Amino acid sequence: MLATTPKPPYYAVIFTSIRTSYDKEYIETAKKMEHLASLQEGYLGHESAREEVGITVSYWKDLESIKHWKSQSDHLLAQQKGRDKWYAAFKTRICLVERDYGFEREEQT
Amino acid sequence: MLATTPKPPYYAVIFTSIRTSYDKEYIETAKKMEHLASLQEGYLGHESAREEVGITVSYWKDLESIKHWKSQSDHLLAQQKGRDKWYAAFKTRICLVERDYGFEREEQT
Repeated sequence: MLATTPKPPYYAVIFTSIRTSYDKEYIETAKKMEHLASLQEGYLGHESAREEVGITVSYWKDLESIKHWKSQSDHLLAQQKGRDKWYAAFKTRICLVERDYGFEREEQT
Repeated sequence: MLATTPKPPYYAVIFTSIRTSYDKEYIETAKKMEHLASLQEGYLGHESAREEVGITVSYWKDLESIKHWKSQSDHLLAQQKGRDKWYAAFKTRICLVERDYGFEREEQT
C-alpha cells in the first residue's frame, strides 16, 4: 500500500486540501483521476489519506510527466470543478525527491 | 489547517507508514513528536492524515534542519519504538520543494 518508487532522484507532487462539499460526483471524479493518473507516461505511484486535511502524494519520473498530466483534458475539467465546488482550499507542491529510505517488518514464520 | 510555507525553495519530508499496532504510548509519542518538531530550528509546518496509509509531511528550511531533527534524542527513541512496535512498514522521502501554488475560496460576505 506504500508506493514502490525507484531510486531517487524522481519527483513528488504533494496535493493537500480542505474539502468544502462532498458529493457522488466528487467520489467518482477522484477515482477516475486516480486511475487516469496511473496510466500517464512517467507515473510512478501514489499515496492518499484524508482526515481533517486530505493529502495525496503522487510520484513521477520527471517534470515533463507532471506538466503533461496537469494539462490532460479530463484532469483540467476535474481541477476546475475542484475550484468551483469541492475545495475550500488546496495547495500543490512540486518536489524533487533527493533521498529516501524505509523499513519493512520481516514476516514472522 | 494547510501548512503555511514560505516561497520555495524549501524542503519537505514525506513520511508514509502502515501501522501494525496502536496503543496509548503511540498516540502520546506522536503528539509529543509533533510538538517537539515544531520547536526545532528550521521547522516550517506540517500536515498529517491517516486512513489505510498514514501520511505526514513536514516542511523545513534546509537539509541541516532535517538532519538535526532526525538525530534529536527523544526523536531517536521514538524512531526506534516505531521500528520495534508500531510500524509494519514506512518510507521517508527527503524532497526539495521547487514550486508551489494554491487556492483559497473567498468568503461569501
